[in-house]
Amino acid sequence: MGSVELPHPFDPLSLAEIEAAISVVKKAHGDVHFNVVTLHEPRKAEMTAWLAAPETAPRPKRIADVVVIAPGGGVYDGLVDLAGPTITYWGLLDGEQPIITMEELQLVEHIVRKDPGVIEQCRISGIPAEDMHKVYCDPWTIGYDERFGNSVRLQQALMYYRPDVDCCQYQYPLDFCPIYDADKQQIIAIDIPKIRRPLSKEPPIDYHPAAVNARGGYRSNLKPINITQPEGVSFEVDGRTITWQNWSFHIGFSYREGIVLHNITFNDKGTVRPLFYRLSLAEMVVPYGNPEHPHQRKHALDQGEYGAGYMANSLSLGCDCKGSIHYLDAHFPTRAGGLRTIKNAICIHEEDSGILFKHSDFRDESVIVTRGRKLIIQQIFTAANYEYVVAWQFHQDGTIQPEIKLTGILNTYSMLPDEDTHGWGTQVFPGVNAHNHQHLFCLRVNPNIDGDEGNTVYVSDAMASDAPVGSPENFYGNAFYNRRTKLATTGESKTDYNGATSRTWEICNPNKLNPISKKPVSYKLVSREVPGLLPKEGSLVWKRAAFARHAVHVTKYRDDQLWPAGRHVPQTSGEPSKGLPEWIGDGTESIENTDVVLWHTWGLTHFPAPEDFPVMPAEPMSLLLRPRNFFTGNPVMDVPPSYASTPSQVAAGNKGVLDAADGVSKLAFGSANGGSCCASNGANGANGHH
Amino acid sequence: MGSVELPHPFDPLSLAEIEAAISVVKKAHGDVHFNVVTLHEPRKAEMTAWLAAPETAPRPKRIADVVVIAPGGGVYDGLVDLAGPTITYWGLLDGEQPIITMEELQLVEHIVRKDPGVIEQCRISGIPAEDMHKVYCDPWTIGYDERFGNSVRLQQALMYYRPDVDCCQYQYPLDFCPIYDADKQQIIAIDIPKIRRPLSKEPPIDYHPAAVNARGGYRSNLKPINITQPEGVSFEVDGRTITWQNWSFHIGFSYREGIVLHNITFNDKGTVRPLFYRLSLAEMVVPYGNPEHPHQRKHALDQGEYGAGYMANSLSLGCDCKGSIHYLDAHFPTRAGGLRTIKNAICIHEEDSGILFKHSDFRDESVIVTRGRKLIIQQIFTAANYEYVVAWQFHQDGTIQPEIKLTGILNTYSMLPDEDTHGWGTQVFPGVNAHNHQHLFCLRVNPNIDGDEGNTVYVSDAMASDAPVGSPENFYGNAFYNRRTKLATTGESKTDYNGATSRTWEICNPNKLNPISKKPVSYKLVSREVPGLLPKEGSLVWKRAAFARHAVHVTKYRDDQLWPAGRHVPQTSGEPSKGLPEWIGDGTESIENTDVVLWHTWGLTHFPAPEDFPVMPAEPMSLLLRPRNFFTGNPVMDVPPSYASTPSQVAAGNKGVLDAADGVSKLAFGSANGGSCCASNGANGANGHH
Repeated sequence: MGSVELPHPFDPLSLAEIEAAISVVKKAHGDVHFNVVTLHEPRKAEMTAWLAAPETAPRPKRIADVVVIAPGGGVYDGLVDLAGPTITYWGLLDGEQPIITMEELQLVEHIVRKDPGVIEQCRISGIPAEDMHKVYCDPWTIGYDERFGNSVRLQQALMYYRPDVDCCQYQYPLDFCPIYDADKQQIIAIDIPKIRRPLSKEPPIDYHPAAVNARGGYRSNLKPINITQPEGVSFEVDGRTITWQNWSFHIGFSYREGIVLHNITFNDKGTVRPLFYRLSLAEMVVPYGNPEHPHQRKHALDQGEYGAGYMANSLSLGCDCKGSIHYLDAHFPTRAGGLRTIKNAICIHEEDSGILFKHSDFRDESVIVTRGRKLIIQQIFTAANYEYVVAWQFHQDGTIQPEIKLTGILNTYSMLPDEDTHGWGTQVFPGVNAHNHQHLFCLRVNPNIDGDEGNTVYVSDAMASDAPVGSPENFYGNAFYNRRTKLATTGESKTDYNGATSRTWEICNPNKLNPISKKPVSYKLVSREVPGLLPKEGSLVWKRAAFARHAVHVTKYRDDQLWPAGRHVPQTSGEPSKGLPEWIGDGTESIENTDVVLWHTWGLTHFPAPEDFPVMPAEPMSLLLRPRNFFTGNPVMDVPPSYASTPSQVAAGNKGVLDAADGVSKLAFGSANGGSCCASNGANGANGHH
Repeated sequence: MGSVELPHPFDPLSLAEIEAAISVVKKAHGDVHFNVVTLHEPRKAEMTAWLAAPETAPRPKRIADVVVIAPGGGVYDGLVDLAGPTITYWGLLDGEQPIITMEELQLVEHIVRKDPGVIEQCRISGIPAEDMHKVYCDPWTIGYDERFGNSVRLQQALMYYRPDVDCCQYQYPLDFCPIYDADKQQIIAIDIPKIRRPLSKEPPIDYHPAAVNARGGYRSNLKPINITQPEGVSFEVDGRTITWQNWSFHIGFSYREGIVLHNITFNDKGTVRPLFYRLSLAEMVVPYGNPEHPHQRKHALDQGEYGAGYMANSLSLGCDCKGSIHYLDAHFPTRAGGLRTIKNAICIHEEDSGILFKHSDFRDESVIVTRGRKLIIQQIFTAANYEYVVAWQFHQDGTIQPEIKLTGILNTYSMLPDEDTHGWGTQVFPGVNAHNHQHLFCLRVNPNIDGDEGNTVYVSDAMASDAPVGSPENFYGNAFYNRRTKLATTGESKTDYNGATSRTWEICNPNKLNPISKKPVSYKLVSREVPGLLPKEGSLVWKRAAFARHAVHVTKYRDDQLWPAGRHVPQTSGEPSKGLPEWIGDGTESIENTDVVLWHTWGLTHFPAPEDFPVMPAEPMSLLLRPRNFFTGNPVMDVPPSYASTPSQVAAGNKGVLDAADGVSKLAFGSANGGSCCASNGANGANGHH
């Protein structure tokens, strides 16, 4: 290593690198708007070679992936070799719109407020012209609207009103929707519904301190709870590579996926075993279920349209994150070609995870109890009204558990008080209609379970034996087994969830059998929040968000096949469907024992209710990637127990038992401190016989 | 209140009460064995009246429910009015076997070791007669075996060997199964398989400290994590009634259900609103899927056969439970008519539960972030090899989340090394076959959602509109809605999980509409681990554990309909099926707008793997009972935030923001302490523009 530390090839671009790319592009192409300047991920073959031999293999180059909009609206994809820096590719796109930037979002409201057509609609709604400063809009991408196509960059302004600048605007939706031309920076149309719904006159119910205090104030009966690590944390971070409890991986971050985890390996008693080359949430869609115009346009593909990175919150110690926390910043370009940093975009910490394993022998109450720990890599992003808290949780037993918590505020539309919503939504506040919707996330899994030779994906179902009750094969009728179905081609890979068979998917390395069970080493995808796409086949959402058509698709790995709804998502028509359907092709490609990518769509269906409003208590969902037949035995027996006694020790009066209670836990209403976790209760608090 | 504090009518029997019941029974009936002396729960009508008017309504009597076995094997049910004490009922049972007691379990091994037939089978297996002290057995109830019926009390001895007294015996299963007559205290038969499988010679792999140290010792890279509540806990306990964050309920405990929660109410801004009269896990079954004889007898109904209370662990501070903990003891009779106490059978504590709600305005980064807290009522019970960690979690937003973690040790049977298990099990260690099985739990829910007038249960499905894509009703194909189907009769109530429709069940009070949404106030059962019973219709398990036939059954409330596989479970034949099928009857009884009981069977299907062995890392499952249309808005806005700033405050340079970060959280690798959670990062760590 020389005097300057080189970035890891997976590292996001540094401020200096972003600046270098911007500089060379500006020189060559003038005063363009920068929608994207991000790491062009190294080619897998090069990267795999370098990871195996970092001292000798060629170090993958640092390349910037750039997307700009030139004055006049021309959209360009570019690549910049940062060594020069030199532009190595520059191409004009036709009929594609790149990701919306935060600056584009901020612009729209000002223009909306000044538009004469909007001012007139506000007047009709009951808002006088002098109150236009109280009118707000959430400027979504238009999604897709067949009247306008995709050659002109458009946004739809979801309209709201705040009686007071601090009010929650979602209590006062307006019923019309202006369409905004981002190139001309003007309103080109307004969708006006047949039924008019004037501004609600209902007094607000806000969640800020002044409002809560006016309603009687905060509850005062919560005693503090503190989480501390007086000897520091158990994880080590070298740049962006983290090691903890046999885990090692690189923490990346991109403008659209947010957290990206690369090169996840597990140290199994000294052997570093690969698990996943790359894991991320690669896309998402939030389709709304009201068929009335223009609500079909509400199906945000928040990651491809706005970016989980771009929308990332700056996290706060003691607020978003509690305990001993490590943060990583995120760096992005600004639209104007400047630089911006989101401080503390990612937080890292560990948590006690309760009992890891326990067993007592009923004969003599010899016992072992061991507590577990988990590591959490977390970010939060705000997509206009909603918040998504994304936590990648790593357990000591080899399980990876991504969790998403939904919070923030429901999308709302206006309604006449007690209007019949026809089942498409719910009145969550007087005059406020929260439409039915789904939150569907696409987990992109590029495994290399136990090596690079190849993996195969199986569907795994729990099946009762076919043999009837009373037959010789199944006399008592209790027989059941695990049916595994190989997904041999991309066509066969299109599979759905089956609750009745407790369906899971197994990612196997068919070249490596577990020496004990003789089954191929594998990781299982155990996912129980798999609602299936409710918009029907042939619908606009089904076309644009094709990844959501099935719970699982599997493709053969190819560089740059990252985003399953396509590279440039705003205003795609879905004809043809971009991304995943192109990679699936005619379905005949073999995906057996090769480098595969598993795309899993999961999430939940939301029928709103008043308890979700005006801000929603967090609703969590998670799934597991868990090792099965991967280890030759329990991989956490060497985690220090809190207490362990054997039969011979119990027989000798508990002489020699291992007693390592934390010494900090205490009785809630007693004065004694923890002391020996078991001595204070008798030997394991053994049953007292009277 | 007099000078002596009377027990709450829901309280478990005290030691003095148990003693009084035992004393009067011994006087009347001599030297019987006591299987059960427990609270006979007060009749609901009396209890409801007393809860409404404790100063004036008659106080329900304290009655003991008693089950004894007389010398000679006669089984008697009895009731004792503890005021006398007086026996008010005494009845001889015919062909019923009561719950197995811990003492009965302890007896069998000694007798097995001395039986000549067993000694001979051990010799055949490779164990010399002088090593019989190394032979162990887990003495399950026989379950049901049609050769023997149920008039004689029987157990089946699952056989194991320990080369050393501290070894994990499950590594050395023996292939034969002695049948034990509990009345005669002798072996009456031995099931010997056609294929003999001698004792494995594989060296053991144990999980106790000596074994771990011999393998290289414990990992030393875990830094401690401390959880403290320096100002005490937020919950208050008055006897066995707990109040916390608007919740109030009584914590009971029974020999068979373990934790029983009564009279769960929620204080909604000063109005105490009833939710659940009673909640518990009322039964369970763990069916094994190997059709070969005698494995069909392995389907333990652990609660009815052994008791989640009887098998409860004595919990240890800092080991099982971390933080500030309150404990409750459990008192039981001994078989001989003595008394025993399990100290610390139940633990109670609160935990930080992460972000409760958050919202940021993208325009100016005004933000509110509020952290949540949860209350946990927990017990652990050991069913021979397995451990079940049962945690009843209460969230501030009105959600109840029962969670079960499975740990302990797989049930194992012997196999020849690398023998073909035919898919009925997996070799998890050389010579060790862990059979496929399910863990199915029956949640008994007696709701009184928002009052006693009556509740109705609905099935709730997420459905796409029938109208085709392109039709006027569904032009863009996105329409979907919530289809609710009333369960009007016990017959209609037999419903199953549907993953494709994200099925949930709603417990509504049809007499109370939410004033905002106009929908009936309700609690939703959101349960995603619902595998369905794999033993087929007509199978032995299907007959004996009828509650598991469907995900949900609903019955009309009747006193004493508590245990869905029947009152006395060991050795029931299932012909007829006891318990729930009797209460469902011909299916015509109305369950609409009345006092109902919802029985929900949930759990998971387990295909073992080597990582589960020799002791299993905890595998969690949980479900939610969550309020929907119950509240008129978010019920937790008055939980103090960690940080709150409004647009006007941000515009004024963050003057007046609410900053209440815990001041204890710190950077993992920094020296600064928490301080203001946001000041240290800039105003909410706002994006720095360069």
